[in-house]
Amino acid sequence: MQTTNSAELSPTLKLAVDLIRRPSVTPDDAGCQELMMSRLAALGFKGEALRFGETDNLWARKGSDGPLLAFAGHTDVVPTGPEKNWRHPPFEAVIDDGFLHGRGAADMKGSLAAFITACERFVTSHPDHRGSIALLITSDEEGPAQDGTVKVVETLEARNEKIDWCLIGEPSSTREVGDVIKNGRRGSLHGYLTVQGTQGHVAYPHLAENPVHTVAPALDALAKEFWDDGNDFFPPTTFQITKIEAGTGSNIIPGECLVHFNFRYCTENTAESLEERVVAILDRHELKYDLQWHLSGRPFLTDSGSLVSAAQSAIRSVTGRETELSTSGGTSDGRFIAPTGAQVLELGPINATIHKVNECVKAADLNTLSEIYEQVLVELLA
Amino acid sequence: MQTTNSAELSPTLKLAVDLIRRPSVTPDDAGCQELMMSRLAALGFKGEALRFGETDNLWARKGSDGPLLAFAGHTDVVPTGPEKNWRHPPFEAVIDDGFLHGRGAADMKGSLAAFITACERFVTSHPDHRGSIALLITSDEEGPAQDGTVKVVETLEARNEKIDWCLIGEPSSTREVGDVIKNGRRGSLHGYLTVQGTQGHVAYPHLAENPVHTVAPALDALAKEFWDDGNDFFPPTTFQITKIEAGTGSNIIPGECLVHFNFRYCTENTAESLEERVVAILDRHELKYDLQWHLSGRPFLTDSGSLVSAAQSAIRSVTGRETELSTSGGTSDGRFIAPTGAQVLELGPINATIHKVNECVKAADLNTLSEIYEQVLVELLA
Repeated sequence: MQTTNSAELSPTLKLAVDLIRRPSVTPDDAGCQELMMSRLAALGFKGEALRFGETDNLWARKGSDGPLLAFAGHTDVVPTGPEKNWRHPPFEAVIDDGFLHGRGAADMKGSLAAFITACERFVTSHPDHRGSIALLITSDEEGPAQDGTVKVVETLEARNEKIDWCLIGEPSSTREVGDVIKNGRRGSLHGYLTVQGTQGHVAYPHLAENPVHTVAPALDALAKEFWDDGNDFFPPTTFQITKIEAGTGSNIIPGECLVHFNFRYCTENTAESLEERVVAILDRHELKYDLQWHLSGRPFLTDSGSLVSAAQSAIRSVTGRETELSTSGGTSDGRFIAPTGAQVLELGPINATIHKVNECVKAADLNTLSEIYEQVLVELLA
Repeated sequence: MQTTNSAELSPTLKLAVDLIRRPSVTPDDAGCQELMMSRLAALGFKGEALRFGETDNLWARKGSDGPLLAFAGHTDVVPTGPEKNWRHPPFEAVIDDGFLHGRGAADMKGSLAAFITACERFVTSHPDHRGSIALLITSDEEGPAQDGTVKVVETLEARNEKIDWCLIGEPSSTREVGDVIKNGRRGSLHGYLTVQGTQGHVAYPHLAENPVHTVAPALDALAKEFWDDGNDFFPPTTFQITKIEAGTGSNIIPGECLVHFNFRYCTENTAESLEERVVAILDRHELKYDLQWHLSGRPFLTDSGSLVSAAQSAIRSVTGRETELSTSGGTSDGRFIAPTGAQVLELGPINATIHKVNECVKAADLNTLSEIYEQVLVELLA
């Protein structure tokens, strides 16, 4: 059965459909935040539109006391690729055979809709709840992410506005909604290495110095280095070369060799300890080099506390399911929020189809998710 | 003193000026071979214009008996770069303060002129000389060299026409004309390696295989390998990586890594032995790879024999100088002629300015060179 008749849909699905139909490819918000804010305003939220560069951000808060629970997420979606490859047009939000289809259905407009309807029911049933509720929404999570959550967090920090608990709607589940929540992420550290040699003709190697020859044993040493063994919460730190480039392939010994690499690292190392260790390995190989670093995100971990307990309890009471804590996968905007001292969790729908053609989510899962979010509100703020 | 008045010049300088004024940048002959052939025809040479692709080649022979002495060279020159950087316009052939200036003055229109005037004097003084004299001239020695000397040699081989002695006019001298002659060249062997890995996201390295990591120790082993120790005639074989390329530098583990490398090798190895040894090193590192080879030229050596003796004796009798035999430097068209069994030598002017702005040659050296070539003819064919 296929439907696009929203009269038949639950409030969460109806709102998800409305959001998907706004084609908000990064960094275009396409009116999603305005739609969300109109619903939140009716509940007593005060909204701030924080536009930085081309990125639209929304900070909407109900209440002024602590503790503060913030739902965080993004309205932007990744591009669709050729639309002809999609079973249903990616911005039509068709429900077919129990699945809601469309770009952003799982990542993460379904979660945004569930945030709103959870807040609506909770505020209606608990008009005098304690603390505050907020939504932190950006239109650039999938892109460079420089004018999004990081800037909103800076704004909040500048006026000493503290988030106690942050629940991010990223699709964390694997087989059933709520089976996995992410309670941390590894750090990501990029290195940009330029090894200097002396250019020359291959016929006269004694007049040149080949930087590919000098860097090869250093790269081997870096690739084989034991960085750490991970810990109870994180897998071991990994090192990967993402790019190497030298020479033109004619009869010329290259003058320099570029190497880019990336660490995904756990809390057994720090960015500083890894940088020191790389420099030591390079120096041991007596290279002439320039080395630049870019810290994309420090690792964070919310290993226990009231937010983890509330989420586990909410999932159990709505689905009967025991949830698994995980720190695997890529980075998320949690890397910007965790350093403020907030407890940060990611809890959202099944991630099997995200960033792919025919992105979809089980329609019923969005209703379940909304109930879980509502129950988290009950656990923490009722 | 500066002159462009050819009435004052020796026949060799006059012809060199006429050749330089034809701007024959590779593969354009610009009429040089026609000019040379008109002079040779007057001496009884029979000329064949052998055009392959865009390359003009000339095979001119006087006599039908053996032994056959061939002078070999090229009319093409490398580009000038911006002419404003030249002290004298590169195709004006100005003689200034005893030096003939112009693109091709040293490499190698001066030698071509000396070939012709040497033949003219020798044929006049020895009308009944024994054997045959030939000139093998191409207009693509500085370029890809695919339609030049190699094709003429194929044409000669197909009709069983054998060169016994080949004297190439490449600028072999370093400080004084005739101080160095090249009696061989190293081989040049190119390798094109593609190491296969499995592309993946840097956050999930256990699902990928990084080809830069797997190739690094193999490259280190290749760079450190002892290939041979050279011999009395050649320096040791050298290995150089000329290009390496993998990845884009984003959060992606590269799927493959390209490596280009080059051997300059002496007669202690063969192309086949080097190929075998590289494969053994790669296999020892358990790489998945594709490897292509291009043999640019096998090494050749004319370590003794009548041509070396004649050249040494001719240089001694004209200049009083003892000459040094050398196999250093890049490749030359000798690589195409030596495999036919010919004795091959390179003897030409000082190479200090070749391929540079303000290329020039001492005017008197071209007269000396013509006398040396004449004396070689006397030693071998009088």
